[in-house]
Amino acid sequence: MLETREEHGCFAGRMGYYIHASSATGVPMNFAVYQPPQALDGARVPALYYLAGLTCTEETFMIKAGAQRLAAELGLMLVACDTSPRGLNIPGDSDHWDFGVGAGFYLNASMLPWTRNYRMARYVDHELPTFIEEHFPASAERRGIFGHSMGGHGALVLALRNPEYWHSVSAFAPICNPGAVPWGEKAFGNYLGPDREQWREWDASMLMRKHPYPGEILVDQGDADPFLTTQLKPEALQAAAEISGQQLRLRRQPGYDHSYWFIQTFMADHLRHHARKLGCAG
Amino acid sequence: MLETREEHGCFAGRMGYYIHASSATGVPMNFAVYQPPQALDGARVPALYYLAGLTCTEETFMIKAGAQRLAAELGLMLVACDTSPRGLNIPGDSDHWDFGVGAGFYLNASMLPWTRNYRMARYVDHELPTFIEEHFPASAERRGIFGHSMGGHGALVLALRNPEYWHSVSAFAPICNPGAVPWGEKAFGNYLGPDREQWREWDASMLMRKHPYPGEILVDQGDADPFLTTQLKPEALQAAAEISGQQLRLRRQPGYDHSYWFIQTFMADHLRHHARKLGCAG
Repeated sequence: MLETREEHGCFAGRMGYYIHASSATGVPMNFAVYQPPQALDGARVPALYYLAGLTCTEETFMIKAGAQRLAAELGLMLVACDTSPRGLNIPGDSDHWDFGVGAGFYLNASMLPWTRNYRMARYVDHELPTFIEEHFPASAERRGIFGHSMGGHGALVLALRNPEYWHSVSAFAPICNPGAVPWGEKAFGNYLGPDREQWREWDASMLMRKHPYPGEILVDQGDADPFLTTQLKPEALQAAAEISGQQLRLRRQPGYDHSYWFIQTFMADHLRHHARKLGCAG
Repeated sequence: MLETREEHGCFAGRMGYYIHASSATGVPMNFAVYQPPQALDGARVPALYYLAGLTCTEETFMIKAGAQRLAAELGLMLVACDTSPRGLNIPGDSDHWDFGVGAGFYLNASMLPWTRNYRMARYVDHELPTFIEEHFPASAERRGIFGHSMGGHGALVLALRNPEYWHSVSAFAPICNPGAVPWGEKAFGNYLGPDREQWREWDASMLMRKHPYPGEILVDQGDADPFLTTQLKPEALQAAAEISGQQLRLRRQPGYDHSYWFIQTFMADHLRHHARKLGCAG
């Protein structure tokens, strides 16, 4: 069931906020869709999924990233999901900004009390696109994924785990090696338990070492990002790419930080990266 | 005294939030500035001031309007102020979303208890640009003003009252005839008192009837705007323009509402309108 919260005209397309029941998370999930004018005119268009970072919601990208103008030109649908299930009141789910609500890390939890609802990987990698392709004119053959920080990590991990499903991938300032940084240790320790061997299945650098993604991955990273050395560690991703032969275009952007001011600056490059791989006209 | 709250790299320029003491309002005022790369490279650039609508702050435009990318190209500085003084706790200033805090209406109040602090016209029309031109590389010869809804009204009124000071003007979905609509009646009644003759000095349609602004005014208005007939009344502005011979380019945009999704769709047209009049390279 698709419930429409609101819809607005935007660049001759339609910006909308919606809600649907999710079996993956067990709760209703909010999501946002930008339909380019080509979709309203009857075309089935490629869809590009965005995964946001810690504390964000399905609104953050749509409001702050400035992606709609070019998506309208390129004929790309944009889809943004929430960053975790909400409204569960699981003890401990709201005590920290970097764990629980707003911090689902796009994995499937295997530890109680998280394993029942914190299954964002299953939600993003299967349930949401299926729903989108049923209710919106999105092509099932042309799906891209990207994200920021925790969501950049999510995009990389989901694409590396399921490269047939995701036909293009990129990331802004991703957490590259979560098993080796405080944000990741906290999340993985709670969602996956103490066995660090399990963590390797949800760590972009560990996954990339084993099997490269079939196609170039674009990553932008600001060199004035306050989380660069403690949490993000792009050098781990670079090393993984060298080991497996992954095509990785990792760009260091001088003077840019971790904010959406950075993201919007390089948004056009990412949209064009996906558009090329997804076969958009632009 | 300029206090920097935060600064971020954005499109090779700098997005910043600042605070300064204001004698016009008697309280510290927050404002936001986007400096295009040309300004960081040492050029003194034209500045375009944005006045936001009811309930907004100095952040709204910068986050939601998607103006920085093209401003960087054109070499336009963008300045956004807050919509009222804050922190005063004047009785009644926070009881309604459409009056008091967040609803200063860009006029100078003449009634107690508002007259001491609710002097947003004086703040925008003189104090803030003087401060900006002192602390940022903004040209004092090339100043533009635009805004949305209550802020669109503010831009029109300030430009019509002081056409030598403002070298270009435009508006998104402005309140065109505040003296004849509920938002304006409430604000003007409280800020200016019951004498409706006084109101005419702060009403864009009344001002335009008497003296046209020397230059074309661009106005965009969505025809799916829920406030169109009850609060905005662009037909009053059209009638005023016909009476005084004002050059008015009033565009009705089918399917667009009152949101920033509408504003961002037509932002480029407005930036180019101002850039042409302010003599930007782009």
